[in-house]
Formats: sequence, C-alpha cells, structure tokens
Amino acid sequence: MIREILKVTERPDIISFAGGLPDPAFLDVAGVARAAGEVLGKDNCAALQYATSEGFLPLREWIAGRYRTRFGLSVDPGEILITNGSQQALDILGRIFIDEGDPVAIEAPGYLGAIQAFSQYLPVFHPVLLGPEGPDTSELSRIVSTEGPVFFYAIPNSQNPSGISYSTRRREEIASIISDSETVLIEDDAYGELQFTGDRRPSFSRLLPRDRVILLGSFSKIFSPGMRLGWLCAEREILDHAVTAKQASDLHSNILAQRILHRYLLCNDIDAHISRIKKTYAARCSLMLNLMDELFPGEVSYTRPDGGMFIWLTLPSPLSATELYRRALAENVAILPGTPFYTNGAGDRGVRLNFSNADEEKITEGMTRLARVVHAYIRECRKGQSRRRPEKEQK
Amino acid sequence: MIREILKVTERPDIISFAGGLPDPAFLDVAGVARAAGEVLGKDNCAALQYATSEGFLPLREWIAGRYRTRFGLSVDPGEILITNGSQQALDILGRIFIDEGDPVAIEAPGYLGAIQAFSQYLPVFHPVLLGPEGPDTSELSRIVSTEGPVFFYAIPNSQNPSGISYSTRRREEIASIISDSETVLIEDDAYGELQFTGDRRPSFSRLLPRDRVILLGSFSKIFSPGMRLGWLCAEREILDHAVTAKQASDLHSNILAQRILHRYLLCNDIDAHISRIKKTYAARCSLMLNLMDELFPGEVSYTRPDGGMFIWLTLPSPLSATELYRRALAENVAILPGTPFYTNGAGDRGVRLNFSNADEEKITEGMTRLARVVHAYIRECRKGQSRRRPEKEQK
Repeated sequence: MIREILKVTERPDIISFAGGLPDPAFLDVAGVARAAGEVLGKDNCAALQYATSEGFLPLREWIAGRYRTRFGLSVDPGEILITNGSQQALDILGRIFIDEGDPVAIEAPGYLGAIQAFSQYLPVFHPVLLGPEGPDTSELSRIVSTEGPVFFYAIPNSQNPSGISYSTRRREEIASIISDSETVLIEDDAYGELQFTGDRRPSFSRLLPRDRVILLGSFSKIFSPGMRLGWLCAEREILDHAVTAKQASDLHSNILAQRILHRYLLCNDIDAHISRIKKTYAARCSLMLNLMDELFPGEVSYTRPDGGMFIWLTLPSPLSATELYRRALAENVAILPGTPFYTNGAGDRGVRLNFSNADEEKITEGMTRLARVVHAYIRECRKGQSRRRPEKEQK
Repeated sequence: MIREILKVTERPDIISFAGGLPDPAFLDVAGVARAAGEVLGKDNCAALQYATSEGFLPLREWIAGRYRTRFGLSVDPGEILITNGSQQALDILGRIFIDEGDPVAIEAPGYLGAIQAFSQYLPVFHPVLLGPEGPDTSELSRIVSTEGPVFFYAIPNSQNPSGISYSTRRREEIASIISDSETVLIEDDAYGELQFTGDRRPSFSRLLPRDRVILLGSFSKIFSPGMRLGWLCAEREILDHAVTAKQASDLHSNILAQRILHRYLLCNDIDAHISRIKKTYAARCSLMLNLMDELFPGEVSYTRPDGGMFIWLTLPSPLSATELYRRALAENVAILPGTPFYTNGAGDRGVRLNFSNADEEKITEGMTRLARVVHAYIRECRKGQSRRRPEKEQK
C-alpha cells in the first residue's frame, strides 16, 4: 500500500503530504559539485578504490566533533561506523540483536523504516504508546521488566511519524527504567538537528552508561538523502559486531560520497545551512497548524511539533484514515494513513502529514481541500450513525 | 585473520599479492570528475534526493543493453536491481533464499565474500570441488539430488579465488544437472568482462530457463570498487523479493553515484577502457606464471587463468599455507592462505595470489622472494621428515 501511495505522489497534479522528502531547495547541488570537483580534482585514486568497512576516518572524526559540540559527549571516532543512511544502521542492529522471537520495544506509532528493517529478523514487537511528552513510562516499565526486550528503539526528537519530542523529565524516567534492565536503548536522532525552538533536550547518551545507548545519525535531512549517508555510534564491542555485519552486507559505504560529504562539511557553513532549513520548515509547520486550527473540525486532534518534518493527526471514531486517504486522493491530495506505523494492526485513526516538501501555496491549497474532505466525511458518518440508530434518536 | 592480513598489506614496505584491488591506474578519476560535473552541473536536485529502490532506470537500461551485446540475452530493465556492489546482492540473496539449516551448494575453493554473506543466514554449505574445467559434476549431481540445495553459487568466469573458468562442456553438464532439480543457479560474473583471450563461453542464462538463473554483475573491476555499484538480474518474482529486501536494507543505492556512473558510460568508451585493463592484467598474469614456472619447485602446482585477477597455488603436503604466509611476511611479501575460501576448514594447502594490483617490477621482486621462501620451507620440511623417520631411511 505504501508503495502504491508513494507512486501516486509522483503525479504532478497531486499535492502530497504523504512522503518524507526534504525540500529540494535545500539540496545544495552547487556546493556538492564544488566538493566533488575538489575531491576528484587531485587525481585522487583513493576516492574510487576499495576502502575500510568502518568508513572514512576524517568523516568519523567530524561526527565525533559534532557530538562534542551538540551533546557535550566525548566519542572516539573508533566508536563510529558509517552506514548507508540510518536505514542500514537499523538493518545492521536488527541483524546483530534480534534472533527469531526476541522481544523488541518500539514506539507506537513507530518509524515505518525501523519496523520494516527489524521485521526481517522476526522479533516480537512490544509497542509503547506515545503521548505528548513521550512514551508511556508505566507501559515501558512493564514491558522492560516482564518481557526483557533486547532493545527499545526510540526517536526522542521530532519523532517520525508523530512529530513529538520527549520532555526532559520523561527522558529521565525512561533512563531510570532502562538502567535497571538488560535492555539497550537505540536513540535514532535523524531529526535532532531540526529543532525549531527552545532548549536542546538531553540525549540519552548523557543519562545512561555508554554501553547502554546506541546512537544513530543521518545526513539525509541536513545534506542529501540520495547520497545515503548516516552512522551508528556505539561502544567498541557492539561496534565490532556492527562492522562485521556491514562488511558482509556491502563491504563499505560509497567512499566517493563519504569524501564529498566530508569536503562539503569542511568548506561550507553547515550550521547556517541548517538554520535556513529550520526557518523554512518552522514556517511551513506553523502555517499547516494554523490552517488546521482554523479549518478542521474540533473532533480532529493533532500534535504541535517544534521540529522535524511531520504532524500526526488523529481522527475521531468511527473515521478511517485509509478511507480518508481515498477521499483526499479524489481531491488530488495525498496523505499517509497510520496503520503501517503500528506493529499490531492499530492506527487507522492516525494520519501522518509531511510539511517539509510542499511550499506555502501548496500547503494552503492542500490543507483547504483536506479540511473540506474531513468535514464531508464526518457529516457523512454522523448521518450514517443517525440512520443506524433511529429508535434511540426518536426517544 | 583476513582483517589482520589486509591491514598488513597497507604497509608501504610490503609487496602484496593478498588483496583483490584493481590497479589504481585504471581508476579514471578525471573521467569520473567530468561525469560528476555534468551530473551536478545542471542544478539537478534529483541527483541528491531520495530515489527508487530498484535503481536509476537509465543505468538499468544500459545494463540490459550490455546483456544483449555480451550474451545475446534479452533482459527487461525491470528485471534488474542496482546493489551496493555484488556483495550486497549476495547478502540480499542469502536473506531471501536461506532459512537456518537450508542446504547451499558452493564452489571449493569458494568466494570469501559470498561465504561471509551467506553464513549470516546459517545455511549448511555443501562444497563442490573445482578442477581445471570447473566444478566436479558427479559431486554436484549427488548434492543436488540428495540434499536439494536452495541454490548453487558459481563464478563460471575467472573464478575468485581459483582463477579457473568453466569449460563450455562442463557448463552444459551443470545446466543439465540444475534443470532436472529445484535448485537455482546464481551466476556471479564479476570477472566476465576481464577474459584475456579465447572465445566467450556461454552464460548459464543461455543454457537454463530464465527463472532458474540469477545473474550478478559488478562495476567494481571495470569502473570503481569504491563507488560500490553492482546489480542483480532475475525474473520478476525473485526480483520483487530482492527489491523489498533492498528497501529494508538501505532504501536504495547512492543515486549520485548511479547517475555519475551512467553519465560516465555514455561519455566514455568503456570497451576501450576494458581492453586496456585486460592488456595490463594479462601481461602481469603471464609474468607471474612465467616466474613461477622458472623459480618455483615442481611440487608446487598452480592454475593458469585466462582472465580475472587471481592465480591459485597448491602447496605439496605437508606444507601449510598459513605457515607460508608467516614466512613470506618476514620477507615483506603478503599472500592469502586458502582456508577462508573453504566452508569446511580445508584449504591450508591453497594460496590465492593477486596479479592486478602490483606492477611488473614488484611482481618480479615479490615472486622471487616468495620462491626463495617456498624452496626453504620445502627443504626444511624434507629435513624434518627425514629426522622423524631415521629407521626407515637407514634401511
């Protein structure tokens, strides 16, 4: 179904909030061209030859430096493995942690790509419901103590698909639950660089012992998704297993791409670039929220993200997101219904809306159409309900 | 051990025949720089954005065209998946074909990267001994009929590590064994473009029904190994499974790299480039064989490849390749002992020698030293044997 939806979104007449693409305006083609020219300009054979599985050392050093400035975290480049986007890190973690039937704790709604990657290794998923402050800690605590999951996979900053960020207090509670267990926490921070406002919240790497947290990062949202570069950061023993799995998977990540990225990071002001991305995405998010406040019926609720790329919308019962998808598509608007983000078939009242890829005009037009469709759908459900229970209503 | 050996080969004082690197002189950095400039020169955002899991369509069309000219094979681009080198294709095939305990037939000696990739999925390997004409068909026939392997993994052209190519007759015998079974044949053709002399031998895709053969190819040996681009070609049903596995692994291969490669193939004479590579490698192979004929003791046997990058050497009993590796290293020459190419612990009389990466001067010097080491080692073994059986010798 997802594939079908994403194919639909390629039609030029469709206004799509279904995908998860960065705004192409922030793909710095000219900057990448310059970096590529410099990397390849010195008759640099090493840029095309086989390279080490761990990844290009100067790039790993840059990432370690970024951890120092962002999290105040001291990371050795030897604890970092370059992967093909964080998707490959998820696949590698599934491979080294999950034996068939192993319990895994995951957010609900959870990241679709993680569900896909882990599912290959046949775990038993234990979903932990997300609220506005983060995962339900009493549920997490119960799962951790009774099921003993091999890991808890979490996106604490601007989660995909919900857009929520864990509060600092919730992080501390989670850290306390995890630290009393054998469970490892995987912190996927794909959107951490895209926090629009407010203080930076603490990484779990500052709240838990180093060997209990695996950090994932990605250049997809701040540089280029098509170049497929992300990383996995873990203490040596885990990293060794990950490197062995990486080697068996594809030997190493594209070395030319790694060198171009590294050169780009040296020669460009990535923080200024990130600021521009954040400013645009924040404006689009805010526009979308304002339109929803103004145009949507009160029964529809939604998250109010302060970062990332997504808003999560919850329909009132008995509306179905899959049905809403069909009705919106008839108006040439694409949305992503929520079920694929759940491991237990739930989620058909949830909808993921992406605000990074459409410009303000398209957002305004698309949300206006979507609001109309939602209103009509709700009216129709009410009529259906009143038709189904005429006796009650006559009383 | 392999990792330790490959680390050693990075030392500048070492003459290495241990690796499997192309000659850096054939990494066309200037050509890639031009192609990158053209791809990125048109403010082409698509070169940096998310792309389809199947791979860049024009590149898949180019590969289909190549099958037409090389094998006379009509392939639809929809039957081709772009992978991160053929290593990722091996990982994907392991993932979709092997459940724990499944039988798999593999050449002995077999390609190390395939053994690593498949081993992750815990198959039971059934090695088929290679002779000068190809795999032992009576052994293959027995394995196929009694064990029912899910696939037979084969490198019919200039095999890694042995350097042998299957004769046409042997291919026909194998095809007849496979066609009477449920076993799929995986033809890994990483070295097929590097056949130095003689007629092209038929691909299994011409000897078996299309749904019984999976073809793997790679740009590593003719373009760039560091850019990690290869492919998997199979009928639709298998390809669909492979695409799903690819998506869960890392979404898609680096799209910038795919576009650069495609541009390179359009704007350069790849056949002339391949001719230059073949001419150089053929000269090195022949030099190495001549030196071995001249300098090595008669008890040492070796293959006489007509393509690829490797010669396989067999030591007389009771010599150990691992011990020879240690002794050669003391003379600053690196070789690769044979055990990692066997799934059953055998192979310590085998040595893989690479002839593509060292120039003629280094080959001459390195082989001279290696010959000296081999002679000394054999002399020492003889002395040891005579010391151990003095009574016999006195008779």
